[in-house]
Amino acid sequence: MSNPQITFRQTTFTGPSLLLARRRTISRTTIRAQLDQLRANGQYDCFKLGWHPIYDDKSRWPAPLHLFWDSDVAKWIEGACYFLADEYDVEVDAAVRELVAMIRGAQHADGYLNIHFSVVEPGKRWTNIRDMHEMYNAGHLIEAALAHTQYYRNDLLMEPIEKYIAHIRHRFGPGDGQLRAYPGHPEIELALLRFYSVTGSRDAYDLARFFLEERGNPTGQDGQHFYDWEMERRGEPRWKRPNSFPMDRSYWYCQAHAPILDQPTIEGHAVRAMYLLTAAADLLNLSRTGSASAPAQPLAAAPDWLAALRRLWSNMVDKKMYLTGGIGAMAQWEGFGIDYFLPQGADEGGCYAETCASVGVMMLAERLLHADPELDGRYADVMELCLYNNVMTAMSLDGRAFTYENPLASCEGAPSGREDWFWCACCPPNVTRLFGSLGGYLWDYGGGEDEAWVNVHLYTNAEVKFAAGGAEVTLSQKSNWPWEGNVQFELGGAEALETTIRLRIPAWAEGAFVLTPAAAPGTTALEGGYLRLGAAYTAAHAVFSLDVGGFAPRFVAPHPYTGQRTLGLARGPVVYCVEDADHGWEGNHFKDVGVRRGEAVREEWRSADGGGDGEGYVALRTVGWERSPEDLQRGGEGVRRELVFVPFYFRANRGGKGQMRVGLRDDGR
Amino acid sequence: MSNPQITFRQTTFTGPSLLLARRRTISRTTIRAQLDQLRANGQYDCFKLGWHPIYDDKSRWPAPLHLFWDSDVAKWIEGACYFLADEYDVEVDAAVRELVAMIRGAQHADGYLNIHFSVVEPGKRWTNIRDMHEMYNAGHLIEAALAHTQYYRNDLLMEPIEKYIAHIRHRFGPGDGQLRAYPGHPEIELALLRFYSVTGSRDAYDLARFFLEERGNPTGQDGQHFYDWEMERRGEPRWKRPNSFPMDRSYWYCQAHAPILDQPTIEGHAVRAMYLLTAAADLLNLSRTGSASAPAQPLAAAPDWLAALRRLWSNMVDKKMYLTGGIGAMAQWEGFGIDYFLPQGADEGGCYAETCASVGVMMLAERLLHADPELDGRYADVMELCLYNNVMTAMSLDGRAFTYENPLASCEGAPSGREDWFWCACCPPNVTRLFGSLGGYLWDYGGGEDEAWVNVHLYTNAEVKFAAGGAEVTLSQKSNWPWEGNVQFELGGAEALETTIRLRIPAWAEGAFVLTPAAAPGTTALEGGYLRLGAAYTAAHAVFSLDVGGFAPRFVAPHPYTGQRTLGLARGPVVYCVEDADHGWEGNHFKDVGVRRGEAVREEWRSADGGGDGEGYVALRTVGWERSPEDLQRGGEGVRRELVFVPFYFRANRGGKGQMRVGLRDDGR
Repeated sequence: MSNPQITFRQTTFTGPSLLLARRRTISRTTIRAQLDQLRANGQYDCFKLGWHPIYDDKSRWPAPLHLFWDSDVAKWIEGACYFLADEYDVEVDAAVRELVAMIRGAQHADGYLNIHFSVVEPGKRWTNIRDMHEMYNAGHLIEAALAHTQYYRNDLLMEPIEKYIAHIRHRFGPGDGQLRAYPGHPEIELALLRFYSVTGSRDAYDLARFFLEERGNPTGQDGQHFYDWEMERRGEPRWKRPNSFPMDRSYWYCQAHAPILDQPTIEGHAVRAMYLLTAAADLLNLSRTGSASAPAQPLAAAPDWLAALRRLWSNMVDKKMYLTGGIGAMAQWEGFGIDYFLPQGADEGGCYAETCASVGVMMLAERLLHADPELDGRYADVMELCLYNNVMTAMSLDGRAFTYENPLASCEGAPSGREDWFWCACCPPNVTRLFGSLGGYLWDYGGGEDEAWVNVHLYTNAEVKFAAGGAEVTLSQKSNWPWEGNVQFELGGAEALETTIRLRIPAWAEGAFVLTPAAAPGTTALEGGYLRLGAAYTAAHAVFSLDVGGFAPRFVAPHPYTGQRTLGLARGPVVYCVEDADHGWEGNHFKDVGVRRGEAVREEWRSADGGGDGEGYVALRTVGWERSPEDLQRGGEGVRRELVFVPFYFRANRGGKGQMRVGLRDDGR
Repeated sequence: MSNPQITFRQTTFTGPSLLLARRRTISRTTIRAQLDQLRANGQYDCFKLGWHPIYDDKSRWPAPLHLFWDSDVAKWIEGACYFLADEYDVEVDAAVRELVAMIRGAQHADGYLNIHFSVVEPGKRWTNIRDMHEMYNAGHLIEAALAHTQYYRNDLLMEPIEKYIAHIRHRFGPGDGQLRAYPGHPEIELALLRFYSVTGSRDAYDLARFFLEERGNPTGQDGQHFYDWEMERRGEPRWKRPNSFPMDRSYWYCQAHAPILDQPTIEGHAVRAMYLLTAAADLLNLSRTGSASAPAQPLAAAPDWLAALRRLWSNMVDKKMYLTGGIGAMAQWEGFGIDYFLPQGADEGGCYAETCASVGVMMLAERLLHADPELDGRYADVMELCLYNNVMTAMSLDGRAFTYENPLASCEGAPSGREDWFWCACCPPNVTRLFGSLGGYLWDYGGGEDEAWVNVHLYTNAEVKFAAGGAEVTLSQKSNWPWEGNVQFELGGAEALETTIRLRIPAWAEGAFVLTPAAAPGTTALEGGYLRLGAAYTAAHAVFSLDVGGFAPRFVAPHPYTGQRTLGLARGPVVYCVEDADHGWEGNHFKDVGVRRGEAVREEWRSADGGGDGEGYVALRTVGWERSPEDLQRGGEGVRRELVFVPFYFRANRGGKGQMRVGLRDDGR
């Protein structure tokens, strides 16, 4: 089993591109800015196990403000290690070393390792698995350790983490005297399976599999649901519940209302759901492939896991995903609403669309590209949609400000903007570590004795190198994606191999593409959203290019059952929005502005005027009509308005009043 | 201060009408059917204070299943007493007498009177004012006593109730040693003010006013919000909260998040809000007028109460009310969502539209017609809207089945239908008592030494008699409302009086009306939605008629900010829907059917084919287009469908699959 956090090193971002520009910004600015935040807010020193004034704050139950600090540090280490390999930074290097030393020093003799239960409530470890994020923090520490050892080539972090895994493995599981628990916030499952694929640790595999298979068991612990059981042990009535639980026993909040295999729809906290299903996809992957260190693991229920993953993915993508790749309409549980409930903003009923959740969609999509035996371009389409929209909008062009929620429309109570940091700072370092390992998302590849294959999912300027049949195969791509559809490929080192290359044809291209040189009959085929170039083609053409169509601006609309009768604009994988920075007259968050399908849309190249790393973008111009509710009632024509659309990811970089909207009123037929 | 539950006896429903037919059904069938339910389910005997097996059920906290039983009995008594005056029924009479004897027997020596805290938790009375409905039950007992004494002319129920009021007055208030509490579920306030207006009991007035003025005080009890204070006394953390509280301290659920005068918008449980504001309107009324038994009560803050009532009413009517007069989108708290959040059904995000809530809107509207010094026809428009739509839809034509929620569209999880009874049976007897006192809603009237006035709010076949200037004045109206707009009036007994009559011109008539005989210049005027016939006109014309326009079918649409781009049909005050009983091909709850504004609509008189008391109705026929989401995406025309619309109140009387919708997709411009 491979995954992008391991394989990204085989890919180099070679030329100017939007993705490279963002990676540079993160590498040169964001990593340090986030380190400054960790230092300023207390996280940096937390593994020293001293008292921090924030620990006195009892205003939040069950999760106090500092409960995720372990993971904040871990995710920063993970991201830092990815970028250190790319651009060395002495200050970042020193910080990682110091943090690792502090983490080592914070471990208990028995292997336990957690800030809150070491400092604030030392007697209460493992008494509230549902809420207290011990395993979530442990999972991120595991991921940090894997990134650390990959860059530093030592075991300074792996060693304590291995010990911590053993501690957890001892405590939890199906054996006598073990607790049949599973984490309230999934994350450790995917971390353990990554750990297994790198180290071959059977403990890690068994523990992850137990967590995945036991989850939602209604009678797991002494005939009770585990969360009921531990709640009673804490002496809490079921009516005492977190604010994220709208009702008592809202265990769907953490996907524990039923065993995963029995869940008909995707529910609850969106990040938890994505991390959980990513691990489920890894479990399925491991039933087919192992790694150099870890054998494949048989899984009798593999068909059921595949069916569950496809079912939950489809429910999410078809009925619970925004045009921007955002998921999770509901603020209270930071997660999924009912089918087709996709209001654009808080004043319409919700739109959480958390940054981390779309990072999670990308992780899950990338895993499903391997786990599903049928290669399906829709996974990669959604992965790209999230990348260029809901994920990229989460960071300012200067790399110093971030979002947590990414609604498609602003309102008075929630203007469009970004923050330097959050008390629950999960999102900023998640963007960092995603961009750090982004090379691993571009393509899959492999080979055997006399063959090689590459499935190209994302287009940019990049090159990958991998070994196949004793040779070093290279494939490079050059393009001005996401602005233009021409991608030039060059295959190298594969002269002695039968090489198959699959190129994704995005669904929004609607089948429009041109391959050059043209293929002889029978040497290529369109399969599952990919153009397969067979060995005959690649042998004849080491240099070839793909022109993907669909870069004309297009009007996009949500599903009619959403009740959102709106039109937005998209171009290629980029979804657009309007902002008051381009429309000084706007004062009502574009609620009164309508557009008509079929109206001419003009493109305009703009150099980025809000800072950043020399990034430009294509703006779109069309006309709309501002009509008040009274105008609409009277059938009045309203005021004709020249409209400028900018990429949704670009919003909130130019000041203004924070007024923004993706989907405008649909005034046409 | 008058109110409809007192004044209704002055009105007689004289001829065939939809309202009279419903009253007959209730009188002859519903009262007995509900009595049977009370007998079958345990409520009938509950005041005997024996143990009922349901008391063992601890599955619900804080409100166990039987917590409202006192009020179920009380509301039935109230409704029964209203109808006994109209049509005597020996069995109903005997049941009222027996129930009153049992209630008397259940009272404690100190005046306390409540089933739950007498039988189930005898030590815990008044320890959870927020949740335990003691005062709510007391309020309904007060209303029952007022109805009882009015019909029976004895004090058998008034006597224990007066004692109970004294008990409560002793315990609660601003004095030393008193608790500064106010009920979680308002109701007692309006009951106490009614009690005051009938008896002149200063205790009742002071207690109601204290409850209204104290509500939402953040530091009322020992510097704490009362509900925080009593929660701490119960040893409960704030995190232990009812399922109706989405978050901890969601005191807006019961309108206790801020003092009433400071509340900017209407929030929370819709029935509670309506009962509370009805009492607030009564408080304001009493600052202007008293009654024969009770003097007017000065209220320095009267302008603030008026401003608050207007503000909260407008927020509700303009931004939080369905086309049917339903209020409350949110099921979890049975109440208001954010502004303009008005999905049509559970599968679109909610639509609770509780029957009791619209009964409450009618009560509030009727009170505001007096309390607001500016007579405003919009209050009566909304009162009529609720009556003919959200309220009337709550009972089957045969008078034996009821609804609690009244969504505008069915879905798989919630088909359109009715039930014989509910475990929380507030709605059925609320409809009963409303129809019992309906005469009081038709008009206001009064007079002085040499003048008389009548404000006519609702049209039907009816006659009112009242004393003015020593004469008995009568005004009769004859019409086929709500199907036709011609209303013939005859004024009698007013020969020696200067008589002013105001006739409501509904907003949907858009100013179209004809008065016959025509008025001489200056003798009539249109003011605040009413056509005022001055003394010169009424002196010249004791017989006159009004023809109200607006009975042509009209397309109606919700506010554009709702995001609900739908069209429905209405005619006069009646809102229509489509049902699968008329459209055997329908299988998707009319989600795929669109209509176009401007399409011809044909009227068709139908005799009611689902039972009932000989009621007929006007059906509407037009054409629509069934288009799947795929059709819409491809721009396909879809399948042309002949559509039949029936009154929303008429739905679910003819079997079928329970598929129904008010607002269809708006396919036009």
